[in-house]
Amino acid sequence: MVGPVINFLSDYGHQDEFVGVCHGVIARRCPQARVIDITHGIPRHDILVGALTLAGALRYLPHGVHLAVVDPEVGGVGEHARRAVAIRSEQEQLLVGPDNGLLALALERLGGAVEAVDIWRSPERLEPVSATFHGRDIFAPVAAALADGAALGDLGEPLAVEELRDLKLPRARLEDGALQVRVLHVDHFGNLILNATHEQLEQSGLRLGRELSVEISGATHVARYVSAFTDVAAGELLFYQDAQRMAALAINRGSAAQTLRARAGSELQLRAP
Amino acid sequence: MVGPVINFLSDYGHQDEFVGVCHGVIARRCPQARVIDITHGIPRHDILVGALTLAGALRYLPHGVHLAVVDPEVGGVGEHARRAVAIRSEQEQLLVGPDNGLLALALERLGGAVEAVDIWRSPERLEPVSATFHGRDIFAPVAAALADGAALGDLGEPLAVEELRDLKLPRARLEDGALQVRVLHVDHFGNLILNATHEQLEQSGLRLGRELSVEISGATHVARYVSAFTDVAAGELLFYQDAQRMAALAINRGSAAQTLRARAGSELQLRAP
Amino acid sequence: MVGPVINFLSDYGHQDEFVGVCHGVIARRCPQARVIDITHGIPRHDILVGALTLAGALRYLPHGVHLAVVDPEVGGVGEHARRAVAIRSEQEQLLVGPDNGLLALALERLGGAVEAVDIWRSPERLEPVSATFHGRDIFAPVAAALADGAALGDLGEPLAVEELRDLKLPRARLEDGALQVRVLHVDHFGNLILNATHEQLEQSGLRLGRELSVEISGATHVARYVSAFTDVAAGELLFYQDAQRMAALAINRGSAAQTLRARAGSELQLRAP
Repeated sequence: MVGPVINFLSDYGHQDEFVGVCHGVIARRCPQARVIDITHGIPRHDILVGALTLAGALRYLPHGVHLAVVDPEVGGVGEHARRAVAIRSEQEQLLVGPDNGLLALALERLGGAVEAVDIWRSPERLEPVSATFHGRDIFAPVAAALADGAALGDLGEPLAVEELRDLKLPRARLEDGALQVRVLHVDHFGNLILNATHEQLEQSGLRLGRELSVEISGATHVARYVSAFTDVAAGELLFYQDAQRMAALAINRGSAAQTLRARAGSELQLRAP
Repeated sequence: MVGPVINFLSDYGHQDEFVGVCHGVIARRCPQARVIDITHGIPRHDILVGALTLAGALRYLPHGVHLAVVDPEVGGVGEHARRAVAIRSEQEQLLVGPDNGLLALALERLGGAVEAVDIWRSPERLEPVSATFHGRDIFAPVAAALADGAALGDLGEPLAVEELRDLKLPRARLEDGALQVRVLHVDHFGNLILNATHEQLEQSGLRLGRELSVEISGATHVARYVSAFTDVAAGELLFYQDAQRMAALAINRGSAAQTLRARAGSELQLRAP
Repeated sequence: MVGPVINFLSDYGHQDEFVGVCHGVIARRCPQARVIDITHGIPRHDILVGALTLAGALRYLPHGVHLAVVDPEVGGVGEHARRAVAIRSEQEQLLVGPDNGLLALALERLGGAVEAVDIWRSPERLEPVSATFHGRDIFAPVAAALADGAALGDLGEPLAVEELRDLKLPRARLEDGALQVRVLHVDHFGNLILNATHEQLEQSGLRLGRELSVEISGATHVARYVSAFTDVAAGELLFYQDAQRMAALAINRGSAAQTLRARAGSELQLRAP
């Protein structure tokens, strides 16, 4: 017999006890639940990276409850308040987190929301609720209750699914013959994941097997557009489509982030020579 | 059927295999045990932060065995030796770790010790015992044996509970109209957790909704005493009580540790204007 | 009832979702498997440290499947291609990973390989296979299938065990009366693990209880050869044999890596005065 699964993503990091305490809260409410830590290394407060990471991981995760916490507006009141929500998707999966766009891309991949509740006053929440740690006090207990088989409708106030917050992705654009892109994410290896789609690449004039110029903060680098790291020598800059078919820049056996001095949010121009 | 739980805290970090090897040792001795990693990011050798973190996490953790290893005196002999202990608390919970004050605050919250044993020569320890990795060789195997149902008295030599080491917390103090505080901990977000109690704050002249001055290493900053991050603009310094009701300093969407150049142990003066 | 175990080591780190996604892939294919994370902090692409760490951890891990991924040649084709393999050892344990030497030391400790398959075209692999994330697409699914009881021979093409890649360890040597060593690994505490064996130490003229000189990059430091950290004062450099009987340098309550400006691969000369 295998128990229910909670897939957990956050920006809590591993330096503090935040993740461990959420695990504890879950184990107290639903001891048979298994927690899979997708990652807790989302850059602090970066909803975009959190949303992209959650959506990208979905197809590799067991069905169950998806608990995600990247929550810059936590503790806000009045006009600053964001909702706390639990959602059932088209494909009978469950999502729990702040209603700030973090869950939007995952929901889209799951066919959209069919039922949602506002869990701010959930009977499951831990009292007193802190101003700054809703992962522990609201999101983890609600996720655990769902894993334990509680009905979504019993965990909060009904909420029309049209009210759920959407997420706007910055889009790459062609300008003066260059593809203007932004770094959506810097991964562990210093690879830069860019916001150019497969289709935009095809229109850009960049061609597999050719060189391209990469401009960032006034500096210009030369990259080769290839299909694998080993197509360039160690230390060389390469442009490629990653495992998710997103455009990316990397240094073979090096760090593109370091060499290009780029980070999430940086703007770059890609240009065929 | 849900197995026994071991809650595990240490300063081992995640760069090396220390934590994984302890998990392995536990899985070999008690395969049905579930390990919850509270955190392994306690600053190296910082017994105070370890003790505070363990005690603060307790109410969110399942009952079971609490395994904690922050152990600057490991490998010492003679006058430098610290004991290795396993303890049963008033509330029938179990604690395992070095007897250096690390377990003291948690024990206090659990109603105090009712039975203790010195596990240095425990029949469960792995031979040969290394000089530097008692987490693997002594603490993890004893914790696993307890999770497996072994009697505490069979795991070591009886020890009078009055012999257990206490922990002295540095205390904030009022001086020349300023509250002299120390940073007990810097969390993942760069927030500074201070040693001022709720009661000391009430006597300090600092008032919710007002400004205060924060002096550190000759520099003076202005903070606002608020109840939530969103009560100040992005980039502003705030003073608040955190989820544990401890006084704290933070920068909304920034890092107070970075901006104030503060770290665990730093001294600060807080003053009403 | 306790399920099968997969012991997992990699250089993926915890900043990204790589480890979490592999956990997800395993949980989908073999939900009853338990994953023990040995470490994911192996320095990027450092096969030597990965191999040493895996081999050193073995005796503390439950029997089962050992999944290891440190894979600098991932995505290579033709002459650059390394094999992907699954191996059964003399002691009926299973290993999965790239065939680049990473598994060699562990295999040796397990008595050598008795059966191996090339899993590049395994029926278990996830399609489409990415160029850069074989942990997710090949290694994790094959490890999960083995944990689920699949026969090794069904997971790939037969491969003669003599074809498996070996790993050459750099060896310390005696020269001009000095022991020339290299740092094999820098651990979490900044301790330097060296490549001198117990036997070489005995021939070196270095003696327990005496001082020695440590030269690195032109600078000379004095260390004491002791058996425990507490045999020297705080801040002092010590030379000792670690829990694995490997020679090591450390600073009591400090970081030898920082003080000596050393890292994995650094060369040092040890000399009796």
